[in-house]
Amino acid sequence: MKEFNVVKEVNNIIEFIRYYYKKNNLNGAIIGISGGKDSGVVAALMVMAIGCENVIGVTLPCYSNKDDLDDAKLISDYYNFKLINYDLDNSYNVLKNTLGNDEYYAYNSNLNLKPRLRMLSLYYLAALYTSKENRNYIVVGTSNKCEKYVGYFTKGGDSVADIFPILDYTVSEVIEIGKYLKVPEKVLLKIPSDGLGDLSDEEKLGVKYSDIEKYFIDKNSVSDDIRKRIDYLHKINNHKNKLNYYRRLR
Amino acid sequence: MKEFNVVKEVNNIIEFIRYYYKKNNLNGAIIGISGGKDSGVVAALMVMAIGCENVIGVTLPCYSNKDDLDDAKLISDYYNFKLINYDLDNSYNVLKNTLGNDEYYAYNSNLNLKPRLRMLSLYYLAALYTSKENRNYIVVGTSNKCEKYVGYFTKGGDSVADIFPILDYTVSEVIEIGKYLKVPEKVLLKIPSDGLGDLSDEEKLGVKYSDIEKYFIDKNSVSDDIRKRIDYLHKINNHKNKLNYYRRLR
Repeated sequence: MKEFNVVKEVNNIIEFIRYYYKKNNLNGAIIGISGGKDSGVVAALMVMAIGCENVIGVTLPCYSNKDDLDDAKLISDYYNFKLINYDLDNSYNVLKNTLGNDEYYAYNSNLNLKPRLRMLSLYYLAALYTSKENRNYIVVGTSNKCEKYVGYFTKGGDSVADIFPILDYTVSEVIEIGKYLKVPEKVLLKIPSDGLGDLSDEEKLGVKYSDIEKYFIDKNSVSDDIRKRIDYLHKINNHKNKLNYYRRLR
Repeated sequence: MKEFNVVKEVNNIIEFIRYYYKKNNLNGAIIGISGGKDSGVVAALMVMAIGCENVIGVTLPCYSNKDDLDDAKLISDYYNFKLINYDLDNSYNVLKNTLGNDEYYAYNSNLNLKPRLRMLSLYYLAALYTSKENRNYIVVGTSNKCEKYVGYFTKGGDSVADIFPILDYTVSEVIEIGKYLKVPEKVLLKIPSDGLGDLSDEEKLGVKYSDIEKYFIDKNSVSDDIRKRIDYLHKINNHKNKLNYYRRLR
């Protein structure tokens, strides 16, 4: 890995957040707290940038692992920001039934419905708090560089947010930032999982984050199979990163 | 307005759609049909590009005007594609109640919840039909160039789709295309309205689409007030068109 000056990077990210908030007359942040390292690190950065009193963490379980709620609580207790919980089980069921739930065929539909419901909930809350407190709240995204490159996110779900503090940082860099900001180790060193299904991220991707990081530095530093797998994931998922439209000839 | 060769433009759009479908091994299209001109024109283009048997129109009323359903039916009857209706009233209510419905403060929250619920429903259906028919469906977007420029759309709502056939065409160009494709006049000449609240688009925007088109050709062809209004709308809403993240220094 290239040398990584964590102090400098953290300072730059915080400066960027403060500049954006000031320029756009913003006040507060709504962050979905999954209990994983990305949302933990993003919450820590936002608390440092705009103050814990301006950060609202939201847990949005949807048939989720109950342990994740404890980890979210661990983060909010440590950084002293407000944490609210809304259970989405009921909304999820009503939507599935409305749209023709189908035990056999709806596996993928159901899977991606959850992050989309969370996105819509976070925006709902940002607008609600903006109106209630007459202060401007935005939704903060928690995606990282590795996920973005291989397209490991849901279009219209976790990919939609108003500011992404760690999108230009790899998984191990996010962990470095988290260590520096004293994000609880339990959260930081948890095996990354999107909570959709039983497999970890790396099991689903068929490739390790550490290999994606090696690939970023030098494509030839990983085996042929791994390089092909990363190229393939990037190729089939990169449509999620782009607006695809016909551009007329001028 | 600059000269507009509608035959050439329609041919190019269709070629673009066919190329994209072939390259990505796609088969079908899911389109939200509001009953307005944009979705009417997009449906017509998709039918021409991939065939009516591969197009599924979806109406997703959410406390909507019932007349819009009739107009959607008019379009699907004319172009002979399947039209399915799912009423989102119930899902909308359950979500509002889950997230703390608030008569007084939730006006904006509720407003944008509808297009986000529609986006999520269209993706749900695309994945469901893909699985059921073992053929690849994508979600087709209906935004146009004027809406995009002034940011008249919902982030995470109608701005999320897999392909946007008319995003590079202004409102009057979309109408030209619609006339050429024989989109029913009732639909084509309807006063544009997003169906969220009682006002038309132009009343909400405080500017006419025809003025936005003049502005595109020459910013100085509109009055100072109008130019300032368009500049302002573009400035405050352009964040919806961009991914906002900290880019580290290299």
